[in-house]
Amino acid sequence: MQKLSFDHEPSPSEVLRALADWAETYPSDKYMAGELFDRLHLKLCTLLGKPAAQYVPSGKMAQMMALKVHASRTGSSRVALHPRSHMEEYEARAYHELWGLSAVQLGGYDRLPTARDLDAIKERLGAIVLELPLRRLGCLLPRWDDLRALADLARERGIAVHLDGARLWESQPFYQRPLAEIAALFDSVYVAFDKGLGGLAGGALAGERSLLDETAIWQRRAGGRALRSFPNLLAALKGLDERLPLMPEFHRKAVQLARSFSQIPDLSVSPDPPHANAFYVSLRGDRARAAQARDGAAAETGLWLFDDLVDSVDQSLVRFEVTIRGAGLSVDEDTASAALRRFQALIS
Amino acid sequence: MQKLSFDHEPSPSEVLRALADWAETYPSDKYMAGELFDRLHLKLCTLLGKPAAQYVPSGKMAQMMALKVHASRTGSSRVALHPRSHMEEYEARAYHELWGLSAVQLGGYDRLPTARDLDAIKERLGAIVLELPLRRLGCLLPRWDDLRALADLARERGIAVHLDGARLWESQPFYQRPLAEIAALFDSVYVAFDKGLGGLAGGALAGERSLLDETAIWQRRAGGRALRSFPNLLAALKGLDERLPLMPEFHRKAVQLARSFSQIPDLSVSPDPPHANAFYVSLRGDRARAAQARDGAAAETGLWLFDDLVDSVDQSLVRFEVTIRGAGLSVDEDTASAALRRFQALIS
Repeated sequence: MQKLSFDHEPSPSEVLRALADWAETYPSDKYMAGELFDRLHLKLCTLLGKPAAQYVPSGKMAQMMALKVHASRTGSSRVALHPRSHMEEYEARAYHELWGLSAVQLGGYDRLPTARDLDAIKERLGAIVLELPLRRLGCLLPRWDDLRALADLARERGIAVHLDGARLWESQPFYQRPLAEIAALFDSVYVAFDKGLGGLAGGALAGERSLLDETAIWQRRAGGRALRSFPNLLAALKGLDERLPLMPEFHRKAVQLARSFSQIPDLSVSPDPPHANAFYVSLRGDRARAAQARDGAAAETGLWLFDDLVDSVDQSLVRFEVTIRGAGLSVDEDTASAALRRFQALIS
Repeated sequence: MQKLSFDHEPSPSEVLRALADWAETYPSDKYMAGELFDRLHLKLCTLLGKPAAQYVPSGKMAQMMALKVHASRTGSSRVALHPRSHMEEYEARAYHELWGLSAVQLGGYDRLPTARDLDAIKERLGAIVLELPLRRLGCLLPRWDDLRALADLARERGIAVHLDGARLWESQPFYQRPLAEIAALFDSVYVAFDKGLGGLAGGALAGERSLLDETAIWQRRAGGRALRSFPNLLAALKGLDERLPLMPEFHRKAVQLARSFSQIPDLSVSPDPPHANAFYVSLRGDRARAAQARDGAAAETGLWLFDDLVDSVDQSLVRFEVTIRGAGLSVDEDTASAALRRFQALIS
């Protein structure tokens, strides 16, 4: 069965053998030190144009470490988050419950934050967090000038600017600028290895050396120093070599598929064209029949359209996300459109 | 070069290939679910005699999750810790800085805690933590009756009893009781995969189902839900199969070596005989010459005695830890004694 989104589930034994081949003669890491770390950090510094980078086994952990230090430096533990950001919606309020930070809302629930939104916040802030792309708005990205205006205003006010760049790799084609130029807008940058790069787990934090020196104690406190990290490190390095060059293709394929889907009547694609490698498909129909319709369309066309629906305020809409990675790259547009039309017929 | 303590450093490619062979046809885990998790959890429940177990990628995280829930249930965020426990000495006060708990001292710095120590604490406690063995006292273990008396008193007072069992596997031979009988003294049990079991990283928390249900949200908050954990899971399962049966041998070898070392004049071994698979060696000499002496003894005898010294209040003593795992098992006693005598001569 082909699937439209993400990657096909890996086989552990195949992945481990591929990593073993890739490992060559590298010695093992030990408690966050070793050649594999050095190589990964150097690569990230070069790509992101930052003086320092640090592997962290969890994205949540990486970002909270950064915010904690920004809060300590600015003297304010209040951070501005978008209400649909990953930190607000998916992390069980870890920023507060565990990390002792408080949040103020930056931007409206259904639109990207702007410099005007920040200007409207008059209380003191330790940091603002921007999620590029903002996944829960359909992987939406701000225009370059808007992004820069927002970051500049924060800087002027002495507020640290943090990038939730879990999908930064996937955002680069939209801006048509080097990753380092995007990263330069931010004081701290989080990138992930387990999403577009196809790694196993974890991510990294990049920024000034002094920032990373200061976050290290928090990584220790949070349990982020494993005895051995080499499987994750090797998978990250492999992803940077083999998958990072595919990001423009992921983007292009998403644009092509979205264009093809948008020809179907009574169906919308958003954003259109997609900004990153993902977009929302919304169509009229009965949500209660969607799972069965997905299975039916898959049986007839051989394409699995989505795993779960995305909620929609408009009860008459059925919505799902398409994310192009390894799986979607080999799906042809006619098959995809046929599957989607069949799905549409089955929920109508 | 042979070494006396721990395991020889692994080669990533060899470890990955061995895990690939071991993985057979298991499907990949995904965000903390899958057959590999089920198999590991079932195995731990059986070994530890607990209804539920949960893999956690970090020992610190596993233990703090448990303490946080004990604190919430008992209404007290104050926990009693031994002053030389791992939580006090090596975790940068994560229990307080990150997890919002406070600590009261249980027992003296240089001796094991007893029921009398707990009895002397009159304020309300959420939990007590016992580290078996207490590594910084030379991997010392309390006698069974003393351990039970302490746990019983805590239970009577409605205080949760948590086991820091990072080296529980290594402690079992001392008690000559099933692991489940030891674990039964505790409301929550942490065990490690990356120490005696020779795994890559992580550990597990075991206890009542309702406890584990309640700790889950904290694992999410702390960033303990990786996309893929299969390398660590496979290494843990392999360790339980292949290394757990070696624990009596590790213990026996430690006892034999300690007996042999204790024949050397002006040198002490503590505890004598060793309780677990580790002990301290203390001898008179010049600390400043210890590193060079270690290198010299290694060059002459082919045995690497230790990596780093352990501090000692008595400035005339040179002290190091011996931990018998894979490396030490194949070291013969005569070679070890010869290396130690040579070391002694070089620091005298």
